[in-house]
Amino acid sequence: MFNNVTIVGVGLISGSLALALKEKGFAKHVIGVSKTKESEQKALELGIIDEALPLAQAVAKSDFIYVAIPVDATVPVTLQIMDMINDQQIVADAGGTKYALCKALENHPMRKRFVATHPMWGTEFSGPEAAVHGAFAGRACVICDKEKSNTQAVQIVENIYKELGMHMVYMEAEAHDIHAAYVSHISHITSFALANTVLEKEKEEDAIFELAGGGFESTVRLAKSNPATWVPIFMQNRDNVLDVLNEHISQLRKFKACLEKENYEYLYELIEHANKIEKVLSRN
Amino acid sequence: MFNNVTIVGVGLISGSLALALKEKGFAKHVIGVSKTKESEQKALELGIIDEALPLAQAVAKSDFIYVAIPVDATVPVTLQIMDMINDQQIVADAGGTKYALCKALENHPMRKRFVATHPMWGTEFSGPEAAVHGAFAGRACVICDKEKSNTQAVQIVENIYKELGMHMVYMEAEAHDIHAAYVSHISHITSFALANTVLEKEKEEDAIFELAGGGFESTVRLAKSNPATWVPIFMQNRDNVLDVLNEHISQLRKFKACLEKENYEYLYELIEHANKIEKVLSRN
Repeated sequence: MFNNVTIVGVGLISGSLALALKEKGFAKHVIGVSKTKESEQKALELGIIDEALPLAQAVAKSDFIYVAIPVDATVPVTLQIMDMINDQQIVADAGGTKYALCKALENHPMRKRFVATHPMWGTEFSGPEAAVHGAFAGRACVICDKEKSNTQAVQIVENIYKELGMHMVYMEAEAHDIHAAYVSHISHITSFALANTVLEKEKEEDAIFELAGGGFESTVRLAKSNPATWVPIFMQNRDNVLDVLNEHISQLRKFKACLEKENYEYLYELIEHANKIEKVLSRN
Repeated sequence: MFNNVTIVGVGLISGSLALALKEKGFAKHVIGVSKTKESEQKALELGIIDEALPLAQAVAKSDFIYVAIPVDATVPVTLQIMDMINDQQIVADAGGTKYALCKALENHPMRKRFVATHPMWGTEFSGPEAAVHGAFAGRACVICDKEKSNTQAVQIVENIYKELGMHMVYMEAEAHDIHAAYVSHISHITSFALANTVLEKEKEEDAIFELAGGGFESTVRLAKSNPATWVPIFMQNRDNVLDVLNEHISQLRKFKACLEKENYEYLYELIEHANKIEKVLSRN
């Protein structure tokens, strides 16, 4: 149980975590740090935070500081926090990329007080209004470079995530970013590009609106995601994302070639191969 | 109220329709026609059909014949049915493409007894086991070339769909196929290609399995769809699908170029543009 917890960023992830920390009895008092007065105000109104403070004051009062802001800001802000803490405080982040951050903190004298985490949960919405009760359950949480953190600090952070219903997966930061490119980042690019395809080609908005069934909606759901979150992720994970994106384009070209050459046998095989994803996804 | 209804194909769509026809009191007795004994048996066991018969016997006894089989088979089978019916019987299909079928039936002497429909509902599953109660609700049903069908026959078919909670959209068959390429067919290709990308690049199945969160799962959900259903759709709608697929590949190339050139401002714009899909999808 922490007396004071600070969430840096008062949005989807940090807001949902703050709600859960209170509900599960992990935090008595939650302090929010935000770039904007509106978000602070909204988070206070929604009962996500008890108090809004500037970063330095918030950190000084807190046992646990949780950073969940766009990954480009995460690096300098976390470094700033690391310069402020003592060896009893714990810092963790929730960023969708891990290598750049872990690299930046590598030689920091307080590195052991930091735990690099990526709870693999989210929705396509953002801001304090997007925070929900019961988030995170049933999903994986990646802990990166665990051995660089204080053992007890890792245990405390893991206990929080476990209490929220997550299971832990351990990876090196570099491996995390490769895997995240496959199973998260490319899905977002595909979805953004699909939305743009349809918006470009389908000038009759009525038709999109009327015909879009469940299939289309689930495929473009992620296209509603916030550019302020995603551009920094693509920046930081550029090489891996490019690698997967190149593969994805060449996979799409195979479908294109099948149609052009009317090679429906191979088209059938491509689809049968794709069906194997079901087995991987439902393995447990 | 029909005395006897025949469903040709005993799968996801026809099975779900049969269950609904019984529940809503539209049919006293449902006859199933299937290519395989196993499906017939399964559909009987599941209470989807009351009786399994060969096509000719089933049609001879039925007031309403509903064809929901892969679209390549739909054309010859529907033509066969049209040769068997009298001017009191009604035939409708549920195919995901409409132009080839409507073209094939164009000059049939019984054309007025046929209603071309595409209920925009489905799941990624197939076979009689995939049939569900409460299907179709809240979605659009496209009626094509309405004026070529008998007015009363159209009304009867529409009443069924309306009773299931669908709203009607009217289109020419050719226009339907164009719109379907945008809002349904391309989503499937994207999803199949994404599954193949990940299966190709991500050799560590454990990582896919452990990390795949809601985002990935919703984007690849359609990749579980049956090739026997989808290859014929892509065949019949080849030109439109190729057109949209080319656009989709060029949209993905824009994302690729942004990353290669580190043009993150334009990447931001592309994502902001994609976000507009939300407005179109949630317009009502």
